[in-house]
Amino acid sequence: MSSRAGIVVTGTEVLTGRVSDRNGPWLAEQLRIAGVDVAQVIVVGDRPDDLRRALEFLGSTGIDLIITSGGLGPTADDLTAEVVGTSQGRRSRLDPELERQIAAIVASLNERRGWQPDPVATAAATRKQALVPDGATVLAPVGTAPGLVVPVAQGRGGPPVVVLPGPPRELQGMWPAALADPDVQAALAGRDELRQRTIRLWGTPESELAATMRESEATIAELEITTCLRDGELEIVTRYGPAAEDSYEDFQAAIQSAFARTLFSSDGRTIDEIVAGALIERELTIATAESCTAGLLAGRLADRPGSSAYLLGGLVVYANEAKHNLAGVPVQLIADVGAVSAEVAEALAAGARERLGADLGVGVTGIAGPDGGSDEKPVGLVYLCVTSKDGSLARRLNLPGSRADIRARTVLTAMHLIRELLVT
Amino acid sequence: MSSRAGIVVTGTEVLTGRVSDRNGPWLAEQLRIAGVDVAQVIVVGDRPDDLRRALEFLGSTGIDLIITSGGLGPTADDLTAEVVGTSQGRRSRLDPELERQIAAIVASLNERRGWQPDPVATAAATRKQALVPDGATVLAPVGTAPGLVVPVAQGRGGPPVVVLPGPPRELQGMWPAALADPDVQAALAGRDELRQRTIRLWGTPESELAATMRESEATIAELEITTCLRDGELEIVTRYGPAAEDSYEDFQAAIQSAFARTLFSSDGRTIDEIVAGALIERELTIATAESCTAGLLAGRLADRPGSSAYLLGGLVVYANEAKHNLAGVPVQLIADVGAVSAEVAEALAAGARERLGADLGVGVTGIAGPDGGSDEKPVGLVYLCVTSKDGSLARRLNLPGSRADIRARTVLTAMHLIRELLVT
Repeated sequence: MSSRAGIVVTGTEVLTGRVSDRNGPWLAEQLRIAGVDVAQVIVVGDRPDDLRRALEFLGSTGIDLIITSGGLGPTADDLTAEVVGTSQGRRSRLDPELERQIAAIVASLNERRGWQPDPVATAAATRKQALVPDGATVLAPVGTAPGLVVPVAQGRGGPPVVVLPGPPRELQGMWPAALADPDVQAALAGRDELRQRTIRLWGTPESELAATMRESEATIAELEITTCLRDGELEIVTRYGPAAEDSYEDFQAAIQSAFARTLFSSDGRTIDEIVAGALIERELTIATAESCTAGLLAGRLADRPGSSAYLLGGLVVYANEAKHNLAGVPVQLIADVGAVSAEVAEALAAGARERLGADLGVGVTGIAGPDGGSDEKPVGLVYLCVTSKDGSLARRLNLPGSRADIRARTVLTAMHLIRELLVT
Repeated sequence: MSSRAGIVVTGTEVLTGRVSDRNGPWLAEQLRIAGVDVAQVIVVGDRPDDLRRALEFLGSTGIDLIITSGGLGPTADDLTAEVVGTSQGRRSRLDPELERQIAAIVASLNERRGWQPDPVATAAATRKQALVPDGATVLAPVGTAPGLVVPVAQGRGGPPVVVLPGPPRELQGMWPAALADPDVQAALAGRDELRQRTIRLWGTPESELAATMRESEATIAELEITTCLRDGELEIVTRYGPAAEDSYEDFQAAIQSAFARTLFSSDGRTIDEIVAGALIERELTIATAESCTAGLLAGRLADRPGSSAYLLGGLVVYANEAKHNLAGVPVQLIADVGAVSAEVAEALAAGARERLGADLGVGVTGIAGPDGGSDEKPVGLVYLCVTSKDGSLARRLNLPGSRADIRARTVLTAMHLIRELLVT
């Protein structure tokens, strides 16, 4: 049995969707690596009552550890330290050493940015951030806000609460110190290893997978399997204790045999890692010419460190003149078959390859909408082509969804088309 | 007093961070528009006990409505309908009309995709999706899964639960029917209007804002103000009832007078809307030449429908040869001052403008890391330039964070540089 933790993400900006939460997912993954299962993530606004209720609820579920993110800033709506302290039965006190430390950090930061804020305002903000629950352990600031480990007060029951700042960079930088804290280690003592393995399929419907899983019912009894269909990629993630390793191997073999054609990853590698790995291994370079995705495919090919080993560059050819001037697509071709056509996708791929001097060229043209569609060429119609000296692969897509959905799905499909040309 | 709702997002893939939740934020915004406040968003995995506990907790907080997303698919881990039914005191029953409806949708979908799944597996999956709690209202499927409105059983107390599918496109398509449902309308009856206004600053530290807010303490007593610093943009969102309109106007005037130089939006418009609006109003076109962002800026300029009115295209010049061949940056210039330099950013901006025949050209070059930095040119050093026939603006940035952070912040700063050239 592994330990279990609950996460509370605070911030009205997260609750109302103006900012998407990156901390809950990141913490869940780190906890899994540490053998801790996450039971719930609760997002609450900057209201003390809602935060207090969430802490009480998590405390009542019998979990071993609570982690909060956010609400440690200098403004009045940042109230996590105080609310957590109260709910753990501890009063706030000013930590003068911490106050000096924060003041020094803020001064250096303002200097780097060339900012000269009002000294009285800065001192007030610093003092607020140096108020901590009595008996808590302070985790050194990565940005300006300190973190906290707040054990429950003597004579009361419940898990310790780890209080971390909201900015992902600060939270991530503080995590090793939080995990190493003696109160945290004591709360998580005795946990088992929890393994996680991932298989990815491209183009298998979820219902087919459900049938195969029903056939393997006996094998998978000890495994916690979750499946998720995302933009056409079907991801199968399995979590299990070390004793169930053989069952997992059997399950993986069953999936491999049932879906040999669509399985593209059984070692956890993402499509991005597979494409990058194949380009590096074969010492090939790549270039793009994009219309509807307008640079998002090139941007994605540059996501990984070291991508300059394979990505030479690309052409964003949004206007038809750019398709001709930059990628060399004949004006007459566009006049004859239209900018959104298999022929133009092929000419773009060839143009990208030739203009950049790359081994592989990718061409993308389509109608992302919501306007610009017709009966003959509706919104969601996209043509892709990947070309190399050894040949080409082309696809015609008919995608549902919003403008953003269509562009994202087009980029992902292009990544798979590159993989198919490289790996098979 | 406005009504309050709670949201439960289900799915181990969301809980463990493999998929980021888009439904909680979207629902929170829709509820706000309908005058409903969101108290909590809880993310739980595909475990019946955790989902049941979350529903019980939300039911105990006195809220008026619960909304769930996800867990309506055909696989065994999709168990929301059953768990919600049980917790509302209702048994599952097969809805034969719904079964026929889903079967027809699945058949048409498979035909469009050219898939030929096993008919027995498909029938089993369809039957599972047609099992609904007795007494629930079925919301017609947008994809394959139906939604549900599940009122609490006779003789029990608690809010109704609206059960929606996980794919954002399906959830969003089903929302109008969910909101119009009589049980939902009854639960939300008597709610007041809730206004939300947003002010955005570029380059003001949060501590300065905190000081101004302390000075306006009397004015803002009736306002719920939250602030969020994101990539250098400081966003101030205020929510209030109609009676507090005058207080809000006073608060906005105080912010406008204190931060006249950094305030760039007080009508809710985002930087993307402001840039697009200015380009359209002045009938100007734009083109990019990007190194470290590798197309992400062009991709962002194409995010909005109708962006072909101003975006002509761009050059992704990742390799130095591409900087020369595509954007015309002199080889000797790169040899003399390095690819990451103010001079090359300026040459890229000029090259983009000239090669694409655009009114504005944007040049981006920098070191996104984690490798490639030096003492003289560390990771995070970025040069930007925006040029037009009337002049240029340039910036040198020294950005903290990860490769992804640096690229995202660079794109945002470029958007603001474009705005400064256009608007001031």
